[in-house]
Formats: sequence, structure tokens, C-alpha cells
Amino acid sequence: MKTMGHDELWLVAPQSFPHAEALAMASGAADVLARARVVSTLGEAVADCGLVVGTSARLRTRYHWPVSSAREIAPRLLDAAQTGPVAVVFGTERTGLTNEEFERCHALVNIPANPEYESLNLAQAVQILAYELRMASTAERPAAKRLVPLATLDELDLLNAHFDRALTQVGFTDRAGGPHLVKRLARIFNRAELDQHETNILRGFLAAVEARCRGAEDDS
Amino acid sequence: MKTMGHDELWLVAPQSFPHAEALAMASGAADVLARARVVSTLGEAVADCGLVVGTSARLRTRYHWPVSSAREIAPRLLDAAQTGPVAVVFGTERTGLTNEEFERCHALVNIPANPEYESLNLAQAVQILAYELRMASTAERPAAKRLVPLATLDELDLLNAHFDRALTQVGFTDRAGGPHLVKRLARIFNRAELDQHETNILRGFLAAVEARCRGAEDDS
Repeated sequence: MKTMGHDELWLVAPQSFPHAEALAMASGAADVLARARVVSTLGEAVADCGLVVGTSARLRTRYHWPVSSAREIAPRLLDAAQTGPVAVVFGTERTGLTNEEFERCHALVNIPANPEYESLNLAQAVQILAYELRMASTAERPAAKRLVPLATLDELDLLNAHFDRALTQVGFTDRAGGPHLVKRLARIFNRAELDQHETNILRGFLAAVEARCRGAEDDS
Repeated sequence: MKTMGHDELWLVAPQSFPHAEALAMASGAADVLARARVVSTLGEAVADCGLVVGTSARLRTRYHWPVSSAREIAPRLLDAAQTGPVAVVFGTERTGLTNEEFERCHALVNIPANPEYESLNLAQAVQILAYELRMASTAERPAAKRLVPLATLDELDLLNAHFDRALTQVGFTDRAGGPHLVKRLARIFNRAELDQHETNILRGFLAAVEARCRGAEDDS
């Protein structure tokens, strides 16, 4: 929960709470556990919720409830959360939610899984739902900070022209002739998103190749 | 893995395998564990892979590699898997992947997480990647059909060794000496996800460079 930025945990009639083992496993997320609210029925936990989604381990024919995937339900939960609390309800590890508990739910969510082995455990199911909620709530994308500026298109043009000269000089040309080979190389460098150090390395290599070729011509 | 339909597990230098505790925790997925391949280096595990993606726990400033989110990388892995094996590489629980291991990767993947507590454990990270791969594989996508197979890591190693020789032969070496330049080039080609035609073009060019250099030596 905490890795995905969620911190409101409600426990319904837990066998034991607090529990030393739970605390040990919580590691750096002990604060979530410390804040957990303990109630005796699901009804108490979700009484003020505008949207309650029950997790269903299997796609049983629960035709009274619409079943959504985790990815589908996440934006609906966020929409509903704009105006009040919402809840995702998980059953016990062994038996899941009871029919009575499903009656408290507005919708069901199922995590798509291998039909031949769909038994996600509770921790895995919580992880996926927490992740989908985070993905839906943030447009954030991983952005590694770039220290060296990307090569500009002008610099890439110069690199490609340099390759063109070097290819000719070492006599490596396409049988069909024409700019085919240089275009293929240009595509490679486009895909690689070269930075300026890298274009410098490549051009340094090409300059050394040309110098050797000129040396060879001077010798002959 | 099994809940998401994946069954090819490679273990690199495991402390202990098989292990009774692992077997007990595998529950109904003992078959995945039984099929696991054990190798001593990451290189062995990914030698024939066309796309190798390393998981990065944090958005470190790894500016030589593009960092994608789990959701972005999944369809790319599936595309590449059309023509050969691909791999998602996870580091150890405590320390993650080493820099040497990152050098074997074409791209990095990061799981978006709470910036104040982003420490997903290994099991959670595997779960999310396995889930995103399943979601991508069942989604309807416009499939850009790949006609030329990706270069394998073995082929990339040969390309890099060829560059190493050519750099020496034309006298283009780092002031600091050592493998720095070749490593930079290797990263470019990893990022570009070269196909086999492209490695052939580059190696053809290098062969022509070497032939010119030999010619120059014969002349002198």
C-alpha cells in the first residue's frame, strides 16, 4: 500500500491486531499499520463510502454485479473519490469475500490472470490494485535526469554526412548504390537517441578512419 | 509468475537451489520452480535474447539507458518476443542489479511508486512486471510485424569486439585508455535494439575499415 501511496487501511474483525509479525513485515510502512482502523463488520468500514468495490478471485458468474478489470475500475474509483471516500474490499486469504460482503459492494473487480492458475494471494492482489490506482492517479512517468544534452538534428545530420564520406572512403557501399546504407545508419542513431558525447565519440572514430585512409593514399 | 502465465525462470548464481522453503512457498507453482534453469552468470542467461530489460528500483541518473515504466515496456517486450527470447532481469532483494549487469541490458524499467517510499520488494516487482506483460499480451494491439530478427546478445558481443579491434587499428583510443569507448558504443547499440541486418551493415563497414588499414600497412 505504502509503496503505491495509499495509507488508509481498515481491518474488519482481524484475528489478532496489533500483531508482532505484521509489524515486522511492515518494515518501513509501520505508520500505515499504526493508523489502521479496526471495525467488527464490513458495513461499519464502508458506511460512508460512495463506491465500494469487492475483489473477486474468480470470474464466477456473479451476474448481479458488473465485473471490471483492475485497470477499468481504477479511474472509476478516482472519479468517485473526488466527492467522498471509496473502498476496495479484499476477502480473507482462503475464502475471499462472503456473499453477504459482496452485498455491500457496488461493483466487483477481477485481476486478469492465467486461467489455469489464477490464485493470486492476498498480498499480490492488493499490490496490483494499489498499483493500478497509482497509475490512474498520476500522469507521472519515470524521467531519468539527463546530464549530457541530446544531439541536435543538425549534429545528427553532420554525423550522418560524416558516415557517408567514411563509407565511400573505405569502399563500403551498397550494391544497389545510393543512400541506402547511410539511411539505415541514421535510423539506428535516431532510435538510440544519441547524446552529444556519443556523437563526438562516433565522429572521432570516423575522423581516425579518414586519417588512416589519407595516410594510405599518401603512402601509395 | 504462474498466475500471470509465465513459466521461464532463470536463476543466476542462486545461494541455494533447490530450496525447501522456496518449494513450500511456490504452492501450486512448483512446476515453474522445477523447470527453472540455473546458470552462473547473467550473460549465460540472456545470451540468445533479443531484448533484455533490467529492473531499476530507483530512478537513478542512468542517463545512458532509457528508463521506461512497466506499462511502456511490456508491449515492446512482446513485440521483440515475436522473433526470439526476451528477458526481464531482477537484481537481488537488497542491492538490485550491479552496474556490470546493467551493461547487459538494452533498456531499464522502473515501476512508478510513492517517491517517499518506493521500496517494492522483489516479489512485488516481479508481480507488477508479470501483470503488465499479461495485460499487454491480452490487449488488442496494432502489431508492427518485425521482419528481421533482433540481434542476439552474442551477435552484439561480436559487433562490440569488432569495434574494439577497429578502434585500435585506426588509433582512436581514449586518453584514459581501457574499454571506456567500446562500452559507450555498446550502450548506443543496446539502446538502438539493432536487428541482424543492422549489425551486418556495421560489421561490413568495420571489415572495410580493417581491409583499408591492412592495405595501408602492406603499402608502407
